[in-house]
Amino acid sequence: MQRIKTAIVGASGYTGQELLRLLLVHPNVDLVAATSRQEAGKPLSAVFPRFRKLPGADLAFIEPDPDAIAATGAQAAFLALPHGVAAEIASALLQRGLKVIDLSADFRLRDAAVYQEFYDHPHPAPALLDQAVYGLPEIRAEEIKAASLIASPGCYPTSILLPLIPLVKAGLLDPDTIVANSMSGVSGAGRKADISLLFCECNESARAYGLPKHRHLSEIEQELSLAAGGKVIITFIPHLIPVNSGIATTTTAKIRAGVSLEAIGQALEAAYADAPFVRLLGAGICADTKNVTRTNFIDIGWHLDARTGRVILTSAEDNLGKGAGSQAVQSFNLIFGLGETAGLQTA
Amino acid sequence: MQRIKTAIVGASGYTGQELLRLLLVHPNVDLVAATSRQEAGKPLSAVFPRFRKLPGADLAFIEPDPDAIAATGAQAAFLALPHGVAAEIASALLQRGLKVIDLSADFRLRDAAVYQEFYDHPHPAPALLDQAVYGLPEIRAEEIKAASLIASPGCYPTSILLPLIPLVKAGLLDPDTIVANSMSGVSGAGRKADISLLFCECNESARAYGLPKHRHLSEIEQELSLAAGGKVIITFIPHLIPVNSGIATTTTAKIRAGVSLEAIGQALEAAYADAPFVRLLGAGICADTKNVTRTNFIDIGWHLDARTGRVILTSAEDNLGKGAGSQAVQSFNLIFGLGETAGLQTA
Amino acid sequence: MQRIKTAIVGASGYTGQELLRLLLVHPNVDLVAATSRQEAGKPLSAVFPRFRKLPGADLAFIEPDPDAIAATGAQAAFLALPHGVAAEIASALLQRGLKVIDLSADFRLRDAAVYQEFYDHPHPAPALLDQAVYGLPEIRAEEIKAASLIASPGCYPTSILLPLIPLVKAGLLDPDTIVANSMSGVSGAGRKADISLLFCECNESARAYGLPKHRHLSEIEQELSLAAGGKVIITFIPHLIPVNSGIATTTTAKIRAGVSLEAIGQALEAAYADAPFVRLLGAGICADTKNVTRTNFIDIGWHLDARTGRVILTSAEDNLGKGAGSQAVQSFNLIFGLGETAGLQTA
Amino acid sequence: MQRIKTAIVGASGYTGQELLRLLLVHPNVDLVAATSRQEAGKPLSAVFPRFRKLPGADLAFIEPDPDAIAATGAQAAFLALPHGVAAEIASALLQRGLKVIDLSADFRLRDAAVYQEFYDHPHPAPALLDQAVYGLPEIRAEEIKAASLIASPGCYPTSILLPLIPLVKAGLLDPDTIVANSMSGVSGAGRKADISLLFCECNESARAYGLPKHRHLSEIEQELSLAAGGKVIITFIPHLIPVNSGIATTTTAKIRAGVSLEAIGQALEAAYADAPFVRLLGAGICADTKNVTRTNFIDIGWHLDARTGRVILTSAEDNLGKGAGSQAVQSFNLIFGLGETAGLQTA
Repeated sequence: MQRIKTAIVGASGYTGQELLRLLLVHPNVDLVAATSRQEAGKPLSAVFPRFRKLPGADLAFIEPDPDAIAATGAQAAFLALPHGVAAEIASALLQRGLKVIDLSADFRLRDAAVYQEFYDHPHPAPALLDQAVYGLPEIRAEEIKAASLIASPGCYPTSILLPLIPLVKAGLLDPDTIVANSMSGVSGAGRKADISLLFCECNESARAYGLPKHRHLSEIEQELSLAAGGKVIITFIPHLIPVNSGIATTTTAKIRAGVSLEAIGQALEAAYADAPFVRLLGAGICADTKNVTRTNFIDIGWHLDARTGRVILTSAEDNLGKGAGSQAVQSFNLIFGLGETAGLQTA
Repeated sequence: MQRIKTAIVGASGYTGQELLRLLLVHPNVDLVAATSRQEAGKPLSAVFPRFRKLPGADLAFIEPDPDAIAATGAQAAFLALPHGVAAEIASALLQRGLKVIDLSADFRLRDAAVYQEFYDHPHPAPALLDQAVYGLPEIRAEEIKAASLIASPGCYPTSILLPLIPLVKAGLLDPDTIVANSMSGVSGAGRKADISLLFCECNESARAYGLPKHRHLSEIEQELSLAAGGKVIITFIPHLIPVNSGIATTTTAKIRAGVSLEAIGQALEAAYADAPFVRLLGAGICADTKNVTRTNFIDIGWHLDARTGRVILTSAEDNLGKGAGSQAVQSFNLIFGLGETAGLQTA
Repeated sequence: MQRIKTAIVGASGYTGQELLRLLLVHPNVDLVAATSRQEAGKPLSAVFPRFRKLPGADLAFIEPDPDAIAATGAQAAFLALPHGVAAEIASALLQRGLKVIDLSADFRLRDAAVYQEFYDHPHPAPALLDQAVYGLPEIRAEEIKAASLIASPGCYPTSILLPLIPLVKAGLLDPDTIVANSMSGVSGAGRKADISLLFCECNESARAYGLPKHRHLSEIEQELSLAAGGKVIITFIPHLIPVNSGIATTTTAKIRAGVSLEAIGQALEAAYADAPFVRLLGAGICADTKNVTRTNFIDIGWHLDARTGRVILTSAEDNLGKGAGSQAVQSFNLIFGLGETAGLQTA
Repeated sequence: MQRIKTAIVGASGYTGQELLRLLLVHPNVDLVAATSRQEAGKPLSAVFPRFRKLPGADLAFIEPDPDAIAATGAQAAFLALPHGVAAEIASALLQRGLKVIDLSADFRLRDAAVYQEFYDHPHPAPALLDQAVYGLPEIRAEEIKAASLIASPGCYPTSILLPLIPLVKAGLLDPDTIVANSMSGVSGAGRKADISLLFCECNESARAYGLPKHRHLSEIEQELSLAAGGKVIITFIPHLIPVNSGIATTTTAKIRAGVSLEAIGQALEAAYADAPFVRLLGAGICADTKNVTRTNFIDIGWHLDARTGRVILTSAEDNLGKGAGSQAVQSFNLIFGLGETAGLQTA
């Protein structure tokens, strides 16, 4: 069985922990390096006691040094780093011949000016933007297979784009009327010492945040514009709710005149007939995050509100899974010619 | 100090429990009756151990018999009963001279045909619809003061209407573009033995439900239409999230050309300058349910999304408080000429 | 109605917030000062949006300066400060004629050597130890009424001592066999930016900590020794569970030969017949934190395990309530000759 | 690769769901039958949407008929049924040549009289007691390998026995002084429509229950008595806390004179040196349920309380995992000569 030597760069946050969880037991992966400035020298199992006694969990964190990573023989690296930081190490690892799956925002936007608009600093490596592929495997599998640099999508964008793209492409709805409301688990905010993320501040709480121009809008609108064949601008409202992980997204838009519930279902079914991780729940069913946590599945349901002429799309994914770690592994599987579901078929 | 003899009809559910919590310690209330078919004969404190050793908690539940209630000398009755059931006892209590504050949906709609459309059975007491007042104290205080029958609003409608009504009235937004997304605590589903409401089914879960035509749409649209001076139809999407109580609502709509962020703020401030329980957070601030649970407050924040021309309204209330029990007490205070905040000024 | 000018020193943590919640609406309190080094200058309502629009919530935080506090005319001060810090300001405020209710550990121990043993530094104000009264109102009401300096008990000790003291005093059990297991809500760990207190670290988690010699053992053993008339040493195991507040304590001990279930009940009933905040649930009933959160009640149940000859005591309180803030208010009420339940009779 | 045709009898509860989760992806299992009276005829994925699109999830539930189960060619059956019901079908399946792993209490006790004492009815199949093996793989691996009928241990007993047995066997502690306090997630109470298990009743709640003689005491004392070589009776106090799954157990006992912390550690390490699913955290470390949920691991930490002469053992497991489903799979692996960790090595 093929075994790919693999590194995780930035493995001490929640996304890094999810990548560790997946890659430690992935049948085609030899985890050869995991980096963390803070935890360098400590075994993975000391930082994440959950992994004790799993094969490979005695591996020690190292500093995020490109040469040290390359010296392990790593063929691929997952980057779970803050935006701005990821680009630099991505470049260094690409030069050393590794395939890079970047989970930060650094290579998701084709246009460096949009990056600057949404991230408030110049793009750190604009020369690489051309070769990066936005890693939504259901939309762009062939490009992913051929890529050396994957920009794995953000958690909110994945939950919004997968239900919308087939409908936008088919011209079934009016893109100017799209409003997406998402509810995310607290892990989406990262593993950082911040009063607002304390248990007592988040438990028994629900609130919107990041209004009106969340950074993820940039990639959502880029991909919707590509699907629509013209500029799309939407309203997106993220919320924080007291669950560890999971995103529930509800998206509404006006349908074009004459579009039926059946046409909506057919467009989705045609788009995802062969997608192993998209589960179309059918018309009249609402997606629930509890069915997708710790998996790579995204569940999608749809309703037609005949009174207002709006379609209502509900989707559910794990923000750390299909919204981050496991979706990145799905791209990795495609790049290395493994089965698309390798290491991801769990419940 | 004035003391009103008061009854709670249907006091064994979550709304009934909240009314008990408020009325047992309300300075102007003598709780003289609490009814429950199932718990008749047991003291309140046996059914709700939380109330043990509070004055009045030794009162025993009685059957919901109008004569028995009237015999206690009750001057007012709160009804926390299912729709369809409330109307009949409301009628009987009104005949016996009590003021009735009904927390069910039975008297919220002016048009019996709309009731039938949304509640799937003929209205049980259409003759009373004329005298019922939809009990939003911030909108209709004078009518409430003069009323004998209050239809206390639903939890979702309260959270949607209070931010919207001033803006709709002032013509600042296009009513056809209104989309409201609400997230509710599980107590909103009631205290009933149902697998889908078990801790393990709701914890770590988030999901939409009741699409596309939730019953609360009927009263939301009635009141918005009154405010707009013409028929308004909106899209409303309720969600269940793992908190005991609290509703966070996010409402978006296209603003009319030229409407500024300041104009939105001014309309809200003008409407609620004297409203003791509406807290306008200001532009750029998002409401959080944790600040309103167990209070009668509703918090409202607003943003202008200049990119899309939409206003984003966030509101937070307790579904059992401003969304049910304490709002009903607010109407009660108005009816009996007590201070509007009597018994409600807690944190 | 008597109004006491009152200050809260250290009002920006969870205990401070609970004191604010209680004192802002206490009928006999004028809150004249609230201190916080970090938040000085900001209104209470800006730091705790929950308090917006409550009377008094526009008060601005000030620096914890004794002269500034005294200049407000404050007659009493609650101290919600870390141990070691509280002693100094307590001394300064006593000199300025204020009654001091200290919620830190600084004055709970009669013996400065024990303080040093458990808190790892010399006692900061040993000269004041003689005048401090350990503020368990159910045990020491008369001393509290006469005191100027109250050492309000710790959260765990309150939940352990109230069930045990009557049984230890009556000689019904063998003190050497006492084992107390407590589960506490996360607010007990304080409002501080610490990775281990993040939502995602505490949710879906349960764990013991602080073994084997938690600091609260010192005051537990002091008070049990007084009750027993001889040195008592016990085992105490605190746990953290994912609730905001609430402590459930289960205490076991071998009963003396011949002691019956009735004798246990009688000892408890005799001790607490007139205690408004102790609720004896009776034999065979287990206490539940959900019935006491946000109240000053402690619920106590008891079982006799005839197979092993052990009594099992279950108790439930709110760690921020009877375990901290509201118990301190109860002492305050006694000191100023108010009704013991003033401002505390809520559900 | 060896594939065992396997059935799950009673697969619609939480334990059944966990067995499905494990067996649908177990590399050596062909799931050929899953029974449920209520859900017969429906595909697994319709009852548990979480399993949609997993291989095998289209299997339809069947009635729990022994002939129908045998007709599928099943070589092994897991029983996740109520006590009393399991015994009958176990007998029928054994007669048809299947290996039976029973997760109910029916075959855990060697003495039918003890069964009657604790379960309040006569044992339904006393003739089978002799051949049943109490399925703690760490204690009784060889017997399990040779068995046809496994009585898989209860959730609480597993968390109490694994830390204690080595210490009791080695005579390091006084068995008469054992007190075990456990906190369990709500899934332990089963998937049944019961008001007390509703989200709003369990969330923000912690409480003891089932005192003083929980049924699990019978098997705990049976196994401790075997380890001690004499009758052991202990005190055991279960608690319900608001997590979906996970048990944290804290056990205390007086150590024998002269026993050191090192001796305790050595006894545990000697016992579990080769146990793949026991993780000894070491002296001074407390176990945390969040590290073991959804795994077959049990984590064990220990402290010596020199002041009282007591050892404090903390353990953590998943009540549905090592406490039920995955431990049963571990026995299954042993019976069929698979690797002990087959299908269980996940994080």
